[in-house]
Amino acid sequence: MKLIDLRSDTVTRPGKEMLQAMMDAQVGDDVFDEDPTVKQLEEKAANLFGMEGGIFCPSGTMTNQIAIRISTLPQDEVICDHRAHIYNYEAGGLAYNSLVSVKLLDGDRGRFTADDVKNNVRPDDIHAPRTSLVSIENTMNKGGGSYYTIDQIGSIAETCRELGLNFHLDGARVFNALVETGESPEEYGQYFDTISICLSKGLGAPIGSLLLGTKEHMKKAKRVRKVLGGGMRQVGYLAAAGIYALDHHIDRLREDHQKARILGETLEALPYVDSVMPVDTNIVIFSLEEGISTSEYLAELDKKNIKAVPFGPNEIRFVTHLDFDDDMLSETVKSLRQITF
Amino acid sequence: MKLIDLRSDTVTRPGKEMLQAMMDAQVGDDVFDEDPTVKQLEEKAANLFGMEGGIFCPSGTMTNQIAIRISTLPQDEVICDHRAHIYNYEAGGLAYNSLVSVKLLDGDRGRFTADDVKNNVRPDDIHAPRTSLVSIENTMNKGGGSYYTIDQIGSIAETCRELGLNFHLDGARVFNALVETGESPEEYGQYFDTISICLSKGLGAPIGSLLLGTKEHMKKAKRVRKVLGGGMRQVGYLAAAGIYALDHHIDRLREDHQKARILGETLEALPYVDSVMPVDTNIVIFSLEEGISTSEYLAELDKKNIKAVPFGPNEIRFVTHLDFDDDMLSETVKSLRQITF
Amino acid sequence: MKLIDLRSDTVTRPGKEMLQAMMDAQVGDDVFDEDPTVKQLEEKAANLFGMEGGIFCPSGTMTNQIAIRISTLPQDEVICDHRAHIYNYEAGGLAYNSLVSVKLLDGDRGRFTADDVKNNVRPDDIHAPRTSLVSIENTMNKGGGSYYTIDQIGSIAETCRELGLNFHLDGARVFNALVETGESPEEYGQYFDTISICLSKGLGAPIGSLLLGTKEHMKKAKRVRKVLGGGMRQVGYLAAAGIYALDHHIDRLREDHQKARILGETLEALPYVDSVMPVDTNIVIFSLEEGISTSEYLAELDKKNIKAVPFGPNEIRFVTHLDFDDDMLSETVKSLRQITF
Amino acid sequence: MKLIDLRSDTVTRPGKEMLQAMMDAQVGDDVFDEDPTVKQLEEKAANLFGMEGGIFCPSGTMTNQIAIRISTLPQDEVICDHRAHIYNYEAGGLAYNSLVSVKLLDGDRGRFTADDVKNNVRPDDIHAPRTSLVSIENTMNKGGGSYYTIDQIGSIAETCRELGLNFHLDGARVFNALVETGESPEEYGQYFDTISICLSKGLGAPIGSLLLGTKEHMKKAKRVRKVLGGGMRQVGYLAAAGIYALDHHIDRLREDHQKARILGETLEALPYVDSVMPVDTNIVIFSLEEGISTSEYLAELDKKNIKAVPFGPNEIRFVTHLDFDDDMLSETVKSLRQITF
Repeated sequence: MKLIDLRSDTVTRPGKEMLQAMMDAQVGDDVFDEDPTVKQLEEKAANLFGMEGGIFCPSGTMTNQIAIRISTLPQDEVICDHRAHIYNYEAGGLAYNSLVSVKLLDGDRGRFTADDVKNNVRPDDIHAPRTSLVSIENTMNKGGGSYYTIDQIGSIAETCRELGLNFHLDGARVFNALVETGESPEEYGQYFDTISICLSKGLGAPIGSLLLGTKEHMKKAKRVRKVLGGGMRQVGYLAAAGIYALDHHIDRLREDHQKARILGETLEALPYVDSVMPVDTNIVIFSLEEGISTSEYLAELDKKNIKAVPFGPNEIRFVTHLDFDDDMLSETVKSLRQITF
Repeated sequence: MKLIDLRSDTVTRPGKEMLQAMMDAQVGDDVFDEDPTVKQLEEKAANLFGMEGGIFCPSGTMTNQIAIRISTLPQDEVICDHRAHIYNYEAGGLAYNSLVSVKLLDGDRGRFTADDVKNNVRPDDIHAPRTSLVSIENTMNKGGGSYYTIDQIGSIAETCRELGLNFHLDGARVFNALVETGESPEEYGQYFDTISICLSKGLGAPIGSLLLGTKEHMKKAKRVRKVLGGGMRQVGYLAAAGIYALDHHIDRLREDHQKARILGETLEALPYVDSVMPVDTNIVIFSLEEGISTSEYLAELDKKNIKAVPFGPNEIRFVTHLDFDDDMLSETVKSLRQITF
Repeated sequence: MKLIDLRSDTVTRPGKEMLQAMMDAQVGDDVFDEDPTVKQLEEKAANLFGMEGGIFCPSGTMTNQIAIRISTLPQDEVICDHRAHIYNYEAGGLAYNSLVSVKLLDGDRGRFTADDVKNNVRPDDIHAPRTSLVSIENTMNKGGGSYYTIDQIGSIAETCRELGLNFHLDGARVFNALVETGESPEEYGQYFDTISICLSKGLGAPIGSLLLGTKEHMKKAKRVRKVLGGGMRQVGYLAAAGIYALDHHIDRLREDHQKARILGETLEALPYVDSVMPVDTNIVIFSLEEGISTSEYLAELDKKNIKAVPFGPNEIRFVTHLDFDDDMLSETVKSLRQITF
Repeated sequence: MKLIDLRSDTVTRPGKEMLQAMMDAQVGDDVFDEDPTVKQLEEKAANLFGMEGGIFCPSGTMTNQIAIRISTLPQDEVICDHRAHIYNYEAGGLAYNSLVSVKLLDGDRGRFTADDVKNNVRPDDIHAPRTSLVSIENTMNKGGGSYYTIDQIGSIAETCRELGLNFHLDGARVFNALVETGESPEEYGQYFDTISICLSKGLGAPIGSLLLGTKEHMKKAKRVRKVLGGGMRQVGYLAAAGIYALDHHIDRLREDHQKARILGETLEALPYVDSVMPVDTNIVIFSLEEGISTSEYLAELDKKNIKAVPFGPNEIRFVTHLDFDDDMLSETVKSLRQITF
């Protein structure tokens, strides 16, 4: 019986075609700027979002951390939601890599507004850090895959420009938002100073993220990528998977969303579930009835050969993805219903 | 007509006796560890709190920042209230000086509990910062001079020991708490790893703070003080004022609290005041009725020769102190009542 | 006509067998510690050097930077040669990632002695940084591929233990030293606290380095790798190349050395060459006669379809490697002799 | 018998007049920018050097560290002599406070040239730090009080402008250079971006240094001073000593130089002295004959009631100052001659 892995959309493995694309890749030493496949991927992604340039990195943590570093100075402050990946899951990188403070907002499932930004900019006073960057995450992982509309984004962008703040998108799952809203990457590109996109989540590439921005940003970013140890050699093998993913795996994210909705509806009807966060994209977060611990529940899932992660004191997260197929969905729905407490 | 300055208890100027003590001080080069007055002050303060050693610094920001630095490692996280001085008023020092992240709690007027600590320690996971330090501020400036009881402190201390966390007291106004509760400094000393006390707030010295802790802490602290540029030469002049302050200005803090209460009661009865935070020590924070801006109100105070500071969107803070005497109190009460909107 | 690339041993591309090993790799999500091929590589490398554990990273800069970070505290000082890669080619990482100072020695072609270490440890004084780490590079790139003997290494190791200093090996090209001296990796393992080895230089893998050390080091290293953005997902594809490289490409480094010696001897006889550094392994550094600029000379090489890098005001570096075969050697020798000034 | 303290010119204690000036000082809360005496000192010093503004700090380490911080970005590199105070005696602050690398030159007794600067700027390459600041120390402590001529300074300044580098003066003892050369502070002011001067060395104030620069520099410097914990309250007491020192203690530095020369000549004639560094200002560095340890020699001095510091493996440093009077000079000369080995 096959393992059903709902822990994250990062667990996917390349299929045959993607693997073939990797093995056929033309490569060179990218530290010498000579890997043609990497260049092709960087240009492709930049063009997609209408931005000047892109830089390939081994992880989304690195692209976010580089963006923050080149958009701030030590002693500055970054505005983000308290659920943000950059605050919770990047190992203390805001302080470690950029020496910046954070102003944590509490948006609606992670989505804050232009007014929130205005009300949380620090005064020009030597006692306070200097606010210099606003970062949003779209979709928002800890918000249960919630997403902003382009109008909300535009409004924050306008405020940032008025106040002289940089605006970064942690777009690890931005394509999930795009397929759901029908908006285009180019609409996004006009609003952000820097955008981080991830190839190894819903898009299914094994490794890699891209930071997009201006040529000037890219020049600075390369220096930071170097000091972090992110400069790689014949990395075209990985870039080829990324190109394949951009070409073939964006539209199909809709299927992941559909499956997630079915899981959400299934859970809502179950007696051991207290509540299910609205399912907007490919993430399902639900809380268990009082008295049921997450470890107990995960153990039950495990017996059914299903893996998930705890996501708070009594919450569980499921993430649907490329390697979670229709049979697995049926199997999962059946198993969820069989579990009792 | 004399200026009535209620902006902060830092604005006091030394009286004749304190100034004489400064002039008469024996001094030496403290970078060579040879200033006898500094040594005397450091020992006096350490003994008062029953701790092994103390180190004199030019500011409370420096003592807090050193404590944080020597109690954490880069990538760690500090637990504190979101109102904390270390988070809001030390210029982004947590990230800048120590490369640490913050977990911000929302305690009752700044006072959180042992359970809050337990619930906010990060899991042992490479994605998260490592929680290593809990810091409380007592009294809590942005909580309106609120204070912890010794039982509350003891309970947090116990939790910190269980969880292997360091425990720091930002005691810039700890003597205000002590005279109010009747507790002794030694009771405090047993609970904290490091304590920062300030001589230039309620105690009335012109400059200076002390960090207290173990001998091992002091050895590390001297190295950090040096790199921050806090090593001073014939600094016994300032230490002498500190000794005088510890000898003569602790008990009289009760008078400041009494005056603050009178101001609080006065304000509560006034039509332009929406609400007054409970007055526990020497700080009075009140909000203005809707429609009255803090700048308008401060301008009215200014006409009466009274200075105060805005302390939020529609809040004002008064701080009583050594240089705010009985006549000034009467004068202030009269003026507050005369103001109309 | 094929390009002859002598710029670095990083420019090699995987051959058919290595590529097949990559395609056949079993992979998993290494951020969840579930990539079997990565685990296999990490164990293999650790065992080879007789160390407890290893961690795979995208570059040798990252393995060095992590080693330095986990072996020091902010305000510490690292002793290394002024030619060291960690000082010159890691983008200012010593200060940026670890907040440490450097004490730069001037060893014999980069090789310093135990006495040099003793004489350059800082005194225990708050004015000075605290010496905590000694790092050697073996072979030494800027020393022209020079190497230490195991006795020299043992002697420095002993001094480090006496003085309580950590000892790191930047072993980006350590296998070149090992095949030349006939010493075993295990002999090295006993002397160093941490060892960084590179798979993408002489060993011919496309990407990747390993940091080796104790289990405790690895635990800390994973946290640092995360914050630097070096945590990767299905990275077994790259690890498989590394395993292949360790299995098949160590012994053949002797051929690279032999070719390098022939290039060295050829150059020594040429009128436009002022001097050639002794050729100990796979690196040839030579200086041009006065009046010949490096850019002019590189242009001449370029006409012959040979690429190299300038390596100082009038110096040139050649590096031999897996993709520099016998025909290329003959071709290069011929071309070098044809060039005139 | 009075102690003769030749360890440093920092050991001086204020005389009656300076102390009186301190006690008569008008003070205010300088964190609110309201200390009139501090403002007066800052303006006085800025005007003296023809610069826009100044900022008072508790130490020369702080003024240097602030200057470096505001003149660089993380990952940058600072060019200075390997003897520099900023490298050796500021507790690793270059890396700790500014995350910058160092390029260490070996000038003539600490004085390097414009060509040295040109030859040591890093190439524009992501592997290297980015050179952004040149710092000289004048007079140079570890160069035995050596000083630059204004032409040498002008020449380095010109190079810095050509190359887009900032130029900082660590002028802890700049007045010693000025009285010796007869040059004016204003001549200096035109060449440097930032200047640090010290009041507590030869000038005899108990505490304090000033950083001078543009208004823009001062704005940034205040933010850094705050985060380092250097913001002080009623600090006019110390500033008053500084004003007195600038008014009365500059010209008399000539006497210190004269006394230093006499000590130097005395030492040259003595059998236990191997060599004496040229005595240019108020510092005398000499080496002992082989076989005499510095600790033995310092013990002999101690018996004569003279204190000095070891300054290298077999070197001793004397520094003359305000509290080293004519009688002490005679006494010292006599004692030096009496010592035998």
